[in-house]
Amino acid sequence: MTSLVAPSPIHELARASRVASRNSYATVDERNLALLSVKQSLLSNKDAIIAANLIDVEREKKKGTCSEALMKRLVLSDAKFDSLITGIEGVLNLPDPNGKISLARELDEGLELYRVSCPIGVLCVIFEARPDAAVQIASLAIKSANSVILKGGSEAIESNRILIQVIREGLINAGTAVPVDAVQLVATRQDIAQLLDLDEYIDLVIPRGSNALVKHIKANTKIPVMGHADGICSVYIDNDADVEKAINIAIDSKINYPAACNACEKLLIHRECLGSLLPQIGKAMEQAGVTMHADPTCMKYLPSSCTVASTEEDWKTEYLCLEIAVKCVENVEEAIQHINTHGSGHTDCIVTENNAKAEMFMKRIDSAGVYHNASTRFADGFRYGFGAEVGVSTNRIHARGPVGLEGLTTYKYRMYGNGQCCAEFGDGDGKKRYTHKSLEKKLPIKN
Amino acid sequence: MTSLVAPSPIHELARASRVASRNSYATVDERNLALLSVKQSLLSNKDAIIAANLIDVEREKKKGTCSEALMKRLVLSDAKFDSLITGIEGVLNLPDPNGKISLARELDEGLELYRVSCPIGVLCVIFEARPDAAVQIASLAIKSANSVILKGGSEAIESNRILIQVIREGLINAGTAVPVDAVQLVATRQDIAQLLDLDEYIDLVIPRGSNALVKHIKANTKIPVMGHADGICSVYIDNDADVEKAINIAIDSKINYPAACNACEKLLIHRECLGSLLPQIGKAMEQAGVTMHADPTCMKYLPSSCTVASTEEDWKTEYLCLEIAVKCVENVEEAIQHINTHGSGHTDCIVTENNAKAEMFMKRIDSAGVYHNASTRFADGFRYGFGAEVGVSTNRIHARGPVGLEGLTTYKYRMYGNGQCCAEFGDGDGKKRYTHKSLEKKLPIKN
Repeated sequence: MTSLVAPSPIHELARASRVASRNSYATVDERNLALLSVKQSLLSNKDAIIAANLIDVEREKKKGTCSEALMKRLVLSDAKFDSLITGIEGVLNLPDPNGKISLARELDEGLELYRVSCPIGVLCVIFEARPDAAVQIASLAIKSANSVILKGGSEAIESNRILIQVIREGLINAGTAVPVDAVQLVATRQDIAQLLDLDEYIDLVIPRGSNALVKHIKANTKIPVMGHADGICSVYIDNDADVEKAINIAIDSKINYPAACNACEKLLIHRECLGSLLPQIGKAMEQAGVTMHADPTCMKYLPSSCTVASTEEDWKTEYLCLEIAVKCVENVEEAIQHINTHGSGHTDCIVTENNAKAEMFMKRIDSAGVYHNASTRFADGFRYGFGAEVGVSTNRIHARGPVGLEGLTTYKYRMYGNGQCCAEFGDGDGKKRYTHKSLEKKLPIKN
Repeated sequence: MTSLVAPSPIHELARASRVASRNSYATVDERNLALLSVKQSLLSNKDAIIAANLIDVEREKKKGTCSEALMKRLVLSDAKFDSLITGIEGVLNLPDPNGKISLARELDEGLELYRVSCPIGVLCVIFEARPDAAVQIASLAIKSANSVILKGGSEAIESNRILIQVIREGLINAGTAVPVDAVQLVATRQDIAQLLDLDEYIDLVIPRGSNALVKHIKANTKIPVMGHADGICSVYIDNDADVEKAINIAIDSKINYPAACNACEKLLIHRECLGSLLPQIGKAMEQAGVTMHADPTCMKYLPSSCTVASTEEDWKTEYLCLEIAVKCVENVEEAIQHINTHGSGHTDCIVTENNAKAEMFMKRIDSAGVYHNASTRFADGFRYGFGAEVGVSTNRIHARGPVGLEGLTTYKYRMYGNGQCCAEFGDGDGKKRYTHKSLEKKLPIKN
């Protein structure tokens, strides 16, 4: 059908992205050179970038519809600009995620099979109003040899426009095999709506933003989507918990950064330690300014000044602020059942000194992260040592939990033969058998 | 919305599948015991199974709408029953795909992170009229500790009904922790339409059948789909090809099993070897009964008795029979360009004695399998040594190419701490730094 009408500019842009991904034969050294050049380009254009950001900030201030939190994320301060540059340096120092061999097997003498990591191809990343996210995502795409189409929040339109322009200039100046169309920007929701239809050009959509955004994207595309719709994390405090660990972990998981997806939203507490533990946790929560939504049993042990009665709705709510639901359970099995039913499969923790119960929890909880005696806030790519974070995935396939550069790769099978045909192999007389021997994880050098 | 009305039987069935997947704490020994019991159950009910299959066969014969090929796949002969039993034994002997550690890292003294493979959860597998597929898929699901909802072709309705019933009896008789609802069957297209909406219960849909089926499924669900829409494989014969290898590989790739997705559909041939090679290939194809769709250049070198002029449509056609498109190219770059544009990303081969050109081809071809001097027909889970095949994926994420048991797993992160909180870590004075040391890939034993 589309061949009868002229392709739209968005269609052309997506096609250019696919061509760029297929025409990128850049070595990791070249990709690093490209990143260096991007960094240089950003530094040289710092004043113009800050000026463009100021236009966004002034416009949004005038409109007055931007929340304080959003405004804070929109402003590109000197410090934020510096951290953006440091971020590129961090990505530069990461190892190449491509070319890693995860399987090496001889099928026959002289018939060798290797499974080798390689870029996915074309990514489409949709993020909210953080101009620094544009730079971070572009760096990760360049490093991993993927092409990326970026869509930022409309509040940051001028900032994103100049940032991507400057990054593209950096790619051109580098003069490497990294094509300039490896990084492209689209501006409107209509653009995204069109892109979501182009499954022939786009391989993976990564929405980084609100639940509503992620759900909307998932409902409107055939392209695979990587992201997390919810971060409903729970901490279960067992009757065999160490008191100090329980209080510290409950407080840190809740208050360390309440707006994060890995912040704790539910506290489950074993009936036997209601009296010995809950009053102290309640006091600590009160001091931290946390409002508790408690079931009738727990309510009696909590300060009335900051406790309200929970409703059924509380068990499926991601507060993302200084609020938490508190519930009494009879045992670890009930805690597991509750978390698997009401959680979002992000990260859940058991606090206990009983290793058998910890093991049961970690085996049976169906989440990307299962923790024993550690704050849920550790669920993060940087803390896991990935050096960069693409996002946190609550998908069950491809990548789960915090996603680093590795999550932007797939693999392909390389087979090296010397003329083998399938008809030579079989069970019958005179037929060859497959050898299926392990080989060293190293590609044969045949040049 | 759904809470206002009684859940449908299909909704209940899907929910039971999710519960079964979460309540399966079976060890690999127990899963193997369950498989042994399933095998025994099938053997004990062989007569009844064959009788039920006969009902399907007779009905379809009467209707007369079943193609010969479909009828052949429908009939459950003694030999096919035996191979079905051998198949279960094969799955029994495979190693457990779960519990494999792909990352082990210390974040702090006493704070240890492990990435451990685990089942995906609930699979929905839709397959065409091969009763043996039902048994094979159920075995793979049991082995990998996933739950599976099966939908077979309507032609095999009686066969599938008894097979799944007998498998479920086997699970009950085993008395292991593998729940009986780990294997369930649905019968109609309406059932599938309902299941495709239930993304809260189903984690992965695997359609095994025609392109039309796979495309239909992908267009009608938010649930991730693993499968291949097309198998348009190409063989490129370079001017530096060895004549014998070129002829053998072209013939084997085409005729070894033309109905398979890894059969060759396109032959690209370097202009310089038209005269030296194409006539011999043409003769071999003629002898094999292959019809060639050739471009005007190639046509002159091919026997007119079995050659027709190609059209644009031929470059995107998956023949799945004794037909092939033949095209002249100027060089390896044009071959790469043509394959990346018209292929389906399944498996493509270069025949050449020039390793530099082979390397370029293998690097630049964007397909699940890239072969140097080997028949495309090797793209198969059994030939790759996986011991079983879930299917072949042309997806770019999660699993690509032939998929074995490993493709039915995901992973989760297990963190073992002793009370660590995020607030203790940071760049400032008195803050702890992450150690990010590699650990042995072995879970700590704390019981």
